Amino acid sequence: MAKDDKAKDSRPQGLLPPRQAATAIARLPKGMRDVGPAEVRGLERMLKKIRGVYELYGFEPLATSALEFSDALGKFLPDQERPNAGVFSFQDEDGDWMSLRYDLTAPLARYVAENYDRLPKPYRRYQVGSVWRNEKPGPGRFREFVQFDADTVGTDNVAADAEICMMAADALEAIGVPRGQYVIKVCNRKMFFGLLESIGLMGTENDQRQLTVLRAIDKFDRLGATAVRELLGGGRTDASGDFTKGAGLTPEQIDQVVLYIGLYIGMQMLPNENEAAVDHWESQCDDWAGVVGKSILGQQGVEELRLMALHFHAAGYGLNQIKLDSTIIRGLEYYTGPVFEAELTFPIEGDDGKPVRFGSVGGGGRYDGLVSRFTGQPVPATGFSIGISRLYAALQALGKTGAETARGPVLVLVMDKTDLGAYQALAAKLRQAGIPAEMYVGSSGMKAQMKYADKRGSPCVVIQGGDEKAKGEVTIKDLIAGAQAAANITDRAAWTEGRPAQVSVPEADMVRAVREILARHSR
Amino acid sequence: MAKDDKAKDSRPQGLLPPRQAATAIARLPKGMRDVGPAEVRGLERMLKKIRGVYELYGFEPLATSALEFSDALGKFLPDQERPNAGVFSFQDEDGDWMSLRYDLTAPLARYVAENYDRLPKPYRRYQVGSVWRNEKPGPGRFREFVQFDADTVGTDNVAADAEICMMAADALEAIGVPRGQYVIKVCNRKMFFGLLESIGLMGTENDQRQLTVLRAIDKFDRLGATAVRELLGGGRTDASGDFTKGAGLTPEQIDQVVLYIGLYIGMQMLPNENEAAVDHWESQCDDWAGVVGKSILGQQGVEELRLMALHFHAAGYGLNQIKLDSTIIRGLEYYTGPVFEAELTFPIEGDDGKPVRFGSVGGGGRYDGLVSRFTGQPVPATGFSIGISRLYAALQALGKTGAETARGPVLVLVMDKTDLGAYQALAAKLRQAGIPAEMYVGSSGMKAQMKYADKRGSPCVVIQGGDEKAKGEVTIKDLIAGAQAAANITDRAAWTEGRPAQVSVPEADMVRAVREILARHSR
Repeated sequence: MAKDDKAKDSRPQGLLPPRQAATAIARLPKGMRDVGPAEVRGLERMLKKIRGVYELYGFEPLATSALEFSDALGKFLPDQERPNAGVFSFQDEDGDWMSLRYDLTAPLARYVAENYDRLPKPYRRYQVGSVWRNEKPGPGRFREFVQFDADTVGTDNVAADAEICMMAADALEAIGVPRGQYVIKVCNRKMFFGLLESIGLMGTENDQRQLTVLRAIDKFDRLGATAVRELLGGGRTDASGDFTKGAGLTPEQIDQVVLYIGLYIGMQMLPNENEAAVDHWESQCDDWAGVVGKSILGQQGVEELRLMALHFHAAGYGLNQIKLDSTIIRGLEYYTGPVFEAELTFPIEGDDGKPVRFGSVGGGGRYDGLVSRFTGQPVPATGFSIGISRLYAALQALGKTGAETARGPVLVLVMDKTDLGAYQALAAKLRQAGIPAEMYVGSSGMKAQMKYADKRGSPCVVIQGGDEKAKGEVTIKDLIAGAQAAANITDRAAWTEGRPAQVSVPEADMVRAVREILARHSR
Repeated sequence: MAKDDKAKDSRPQGLLPPRQAATAIARLPKGMRDVGPAEVRGLERMLKKIRGVYELYGFEPLATSALEFSDALGKFLPDQERPNAGVFSFQDEDGDWMSLRYDLTAPLARYVAENYDRLPKPYRRYQVGSVWRNEKPGPGRFREFVQFDADTVGTDNVAADAEICMMAADALEAIGVPRGQYVIKVCNRKMFFGLLESIGLMGTENDQRQLTVLRAIDKFDRLGATAVRELLGGGRTDASGDFTKGAGLTPEQIDQVVLYIGLYIGMQMLPNENEAAVDHWESQCDDWAGVVGKSILGQQGVEELRLMALHFHAAGYGLNQIKLDSTIIRGLEYYTGPVFEAELTFPIEGDDGKPVRFGSVGGGGRYDGLVSRFTGQPVPATGFSIGISRLYAALQALGKTGAETARGPVLVLVMDKTDLGAYQALAAKLRQAGIPAEMYVGSSGMKAQMKYADKRGSPCVVIQGGDEKAKGEVTIKDLIAGAQAAANITDRAAWTEGRPAQVSVPEADMVRAVREILARHSR
């Protein structure tokens, strides 16, 4: 290649990139990741199924830009010179701050406000896309990740909330989570406000205690009733000796809170019979109505929950799909009415090796303040967001990503470099028959080519050496059967003689023979 | 709602968002856009078909992060304090500069360098995703847009280049561009260097003239031979009187350049017969070999082109799909060998109302310097990039986006707000039959509901008022036939009496009746 190099040296300046030493380090910024072929394909399959369900419910797709003005995202505090540190931001040439979206809800609010007049009302859209968080990354916590949202904007009808819960259940079943291995938990934030009101814990002077009560309820699932009683009262010392200050409630107040939570326990013990669902939901709502007492907001919350249950029942959903659960909190701000959470109930191995529930893969609820930031008018809305990476991890745990059955392309080996056209023709014939296939386009010999086929997960290779060519034949080597045979055969002579998993056929029969091998290994 | 408002006023501070005045303006940053439902769906269909073709060729998907270190993108000049102004950049908490990717090739190079040892070689991947350019936006020029790339890394075998050209042709046909309405134009950058060498225009002292020659060749298609001769010689005065300085070549040099281009003209006039393709390609290559004369680089370019043509022929591609074209330039830097461009040849209306060719929708070629920036070792690579928005615009011009046949969901009207469960049950029944359907979840009356159905493009609405309920029936109103009838009927009495496009059926027959309407209007 010396001549070639010489020619290159005299090439016009600037027309070819100059020879260069390594000038940059190949590394991803922290918290970022690359997604390989199995996961890209598996995600695509999963997203397609979710889209199918959302389209069935009449939701239509929207794609907004990744960049928004920081103030449109609500991430610009008036007393600061820079946007919130939690978002990735920079100034454009006009000095305006822009940020990468940190969720899909804030851009939706901007979009609705900007296009309000021409949108159908209610406006129902789904969107799937990356969001970015300028937060400390950790195991399983990335700075770029994909969310799949569905929202209904412009109605305070809780039919819209109920529908989103049913849609979430359908989506989980569509991607392969069996009924009984997930639950959509539903509550209403107003019920919790009603509880606070009924125990006299309203008003800004009780801010801190409200928080403590919320946190205690949130821990019920993990710590149980006794611990929660302590956290609601004087405080609790855990196994390690650490003391957590309590909310300082009176015994009567504590009873009320535990009663509020406790209705959830009763529900847990009920059989999953669909017929019983509506009666059970009704009786839960009656009990909660008792706990929130005279609080108008609380009663409103219970009635909304009752209405949602009516929709669940009318559409045929049962307790093995949707549960009313008074421990569902979902953060402190933002939500104003119904809240919901999708939880996967099958066990996976926890950090300590013990089985734990897979847990939450998505959630949402009703929010009213987002669009009004732009319009000054309240625009009621409700939505649900799925964390796509986490849901995909769940599918992996269930063995249902589809990656299990993935195969690489059929590889046509290059035996004679002066006759590339012949191999290209063979590869083209396979592709025309709809079989993923490639001619080896590298420059290495047989051994490297077989190694390449192995690395690509090729089900078989097509070989046409001089002998085959003379006879108008091709040899097809079944790599899957070959690998199985190799694992079983220890005697080299038997291997060589038996030539397992290899067949020679006339060139005209190549497609049929390859199809037979693919069919043999289809799962 | 006064009570409700009062209840809300006493809500715990911080638990519900405070009432607020408009504090932000709902607007997109300039150069950004929102993509609505028809285009999202149409893009999804189009991308799926392209993916299918690329998978058939054995390319596997990859998804890299949107953010990269600026120096990994090669967008950080050593003598500057900030990255290139063409990219969106900011400093992370460690003071490192990060940028949004401006194409998919630079991240590929980073990925390959970072994972070199474990990747199959050659490594063949496709990636589709947004890229961002911090450039002045204009009509049809956005700061965020989607690219679809396929690259083969790690081989200098031009079989890989040929394959990418064939794949591009297949992809265009797969999405619905008819054969004969597109062309993949192929050239080799080394041939152009050979031309420069053969007319004695090498060396850095000729930098400016090389550029002028390139630009003149690039204008051949638009201005024709006479104008190009002037641009290669003393200069040209255009119709408006503006003078463009020429390259100052001698008449003999000009003859050589025009001969180099002219072979392209001859090709244009040849019939599109596949059988003749390989002979024609061969004879073109013979002629170019004559023009580049003794230039070793030029001869190498011709031989590479000849080899590519051999692959095209072997795989059954003809002149109505792929053409060798010596006017293909594709920018000044970056590419080192084969270059290709996908052009759509059908006419659309130009800015002046006259028909113009749709033009380029993608291109690519061989590049060698990208991975070596990280490794110091040359890693040959070749790739092709499709501009997705532009290609989608082409499909729109052809009426093949699929949006033409799109329908909204069937709408179940809410006639009695105290009986929402009944309507929910009807909607659920339609969905269970696989028919996109929704119960109206807003709070407005009949008129607004019909307007909503219209805005959503619903093919029909399902109505169950008191009368129908009593009889166990539903009424289905065919909105498409209704609109057609309304356009034809001018007599109001005839309209009311005829009740066109409306049918009442027993509730149990609802799904069948809706299916009939959908089938009637399926196109």
